[in-house]
Amino acid sequence: MSDDGVRIYEVGPRDGLQAEETVVATDAKLTFIGLLADAGLREIEATSFVSARAIPQLADADALMSRLQRRAGVRYPVLVPNERGMQRAIEAGVDAICLFTAATESYARHNINMGIDESLAAFAPVAATARERGMWIRGYVSTAFGCPYEGEVSAAAVVDVSQRLLELGVDQLGISDTVGVATPRDVRRVIGARRDAGIPPAAIACHFHDTRGTALANVMTALELGVRCFDAAAGGTGGSPYAPGAAGNLATEDLVYLLDREGLDSGVELDGVIEAARFIGQQLHRSVSSKVGRAGGWPLG
Amino acid sequence: MSDDGVRIYEVGPRDGLQAEETVVATDAKLTFIGLLADAGLREIEATSFVSARAIPQLADADALMSRLQRRAGVRYPVLVPNERGMQRAIEAGVDAICLFTAATESYARHNINMGIDESLAAFAPVAATARERGMWIRGYVSTAFGCPYEGEVSAAAVVDVSQRLLELGVDQLGISDTVGVATPRDVRRVIGARRDAGIPPAAIACHFHDTRGTALANVMTALELGVRCFDAAAGGTGGSPYAPGAAGNLATEDLVYLLDREGLDSGVELDGVIEAARFIGQQLHRSVSSKVGRAGGWPLG
Repeated sequence: MSDDGVRIYEVGPRDGLQAEETVVATDAKLTFIGLLADAGLREIEATSFVSARAIPQLADADALMSRLQRRAGVRYPVLVPNERGMQRAIEAGVDAICLFTAATESYARHNINMGIDESLAAFAPVAATARERGMWIRGYVSTAFGCPYEGEVSAAAVVDVSQRLLELGVDQLGISDTVGVATPRDVRRVIGARRDAGIPPAAIACHFHDTRGTALANVMTALELGVRCFDAAAGGTGGSPYAPGAAGNLATEDLVYLLDREGLDSGVELDGVIEAARFIGQQLHRSVSSKVGRAGGWPLG
Repeated sequence: MSDDGVRIYEVGPRDGLQAEETVVATDAKLTFIGLLADAGLREIEATSFVSARAIPQLADADALMSRLQRRAGVRYPVLVPNERGMQRAIEAGVDAICLFTAATESYARHNINMGIDESLAAFAPVAATARERGMWIRGYVSTAFGCPYEGEVSAAAVVDVSQRLLELGVDQLGISDTVGVATPRDVRRVIGARRDAGIPPAAIACHFHDTRGTALANVMTALELGVRCFDAAAGGTGGSPYAPGAAGNLATEDLVYLLDREGLDSGVELDGVIEAARFIGQQLHRSVSSKVGRAGGWPLG
């Protein structure tokens, strides 16, 4: 990654697949993760150690992580919801974890069955264990730009949860547009508030969903604000339980196309991502929802 | 339209439908145009007076324009390729026309069967007639950001054709990303060049295709550069003959969502556009390709 570089944090295997109807086999997930690494992705969120009942799509987390051939220079974070999940992660040899809470009380309660305070209290021992073991830690702040239950969300609420996660020792915040409603003005409002709060831009990753087509416009604004890490999912998988039929995560190939043409080096090869996206589309029995996945790169081949 | 206002120039009935496989009946086109006006659109490019052999989808141009119930305050431009087309437009009572050429010689030859010089020479008497009759005139500069035959396109080429169209008396330039390859850096390069060329931003409309998902990011950049008129097609119709299966024009509903949330008044109602998009999707026997068309607006209803 050059000085002009941007990191792409791939969330397809976890955030992408957990919201898909089709359950993908472990072998296919391993192939998918391998194709993503082949494409040059160096941070690939691999799975989640939640209960198999809650998210059957990721019920194979233990098997997946034990079979995963880790490559040098690639980080494979996994989502850990609690101490039980942390134990499983340790047993699987994981060295990077994600904690998941929200900027709104209602979403936290609906999604992780804990209020915000309760979730942060539950994360404290998990984060302490992770720090002791030298693990890298991400803290997700979901519903940072809008909540399906509470509507608009204040920047103050996002900053508050962010600061409390940083106090727990997280290395990076995943500021997430869970319902895909943000436009550049929201990005300025929410991400811009990090300055007064003393949160460095290097601690922030933006996680945009392309539900309303605004993800790349939001990336451009976040870049202006100094953010240099963006989440994306090859094939734009993920959908939204709040908008059936709607688009999901920002597609990695759409992001790579934009960054390439903006002259920003991500170290990720567009053709490789398109291949990974096609592969996972086949496993999901549907065509990928990304624009570049359908149109191809440029100049035309 | 307030001081913060942005004009949306609807191209669905012409640019959208001309690239669709299904030929839509005249009655349905009239209903579509009516729904667009109901939604608050005040510039609706209605059809094209090209030969029926070249574009069978728009073979009903004369009937359409003679039957169209024009509403006060709404402009219905039509594309006119030559003097014969101009004669038909006059007979149909048209008061706003569009001329169509390109920034690249190869695309002009492939698309309108004339080189750039030849096209401008052919437009001169058409534009003169239009001016005499007090018609509003738009001049399209296609392939302004990339050409399927020549690849990259220089800002100088775009400026040159733009200036020659302005000399013919066009009121507005439609600077078009025909193949949908532009990212914000291209917009800065191409639209930014208008300043040294002495072209006022008020003379520019940007016509982005969302083929690679970058249209809204490009709109944001063009707004920063002072552009205040954007083309869009309800339902994101149009596709691309150069990328089968790819997305088409920027969807009007995606643009309205962005502008609304950015606090920029277009006078267009999102729900009305979504209704028009659904209607034309039914006529085309497919679901609309817009993101907001699938996800709906925000807050969730």
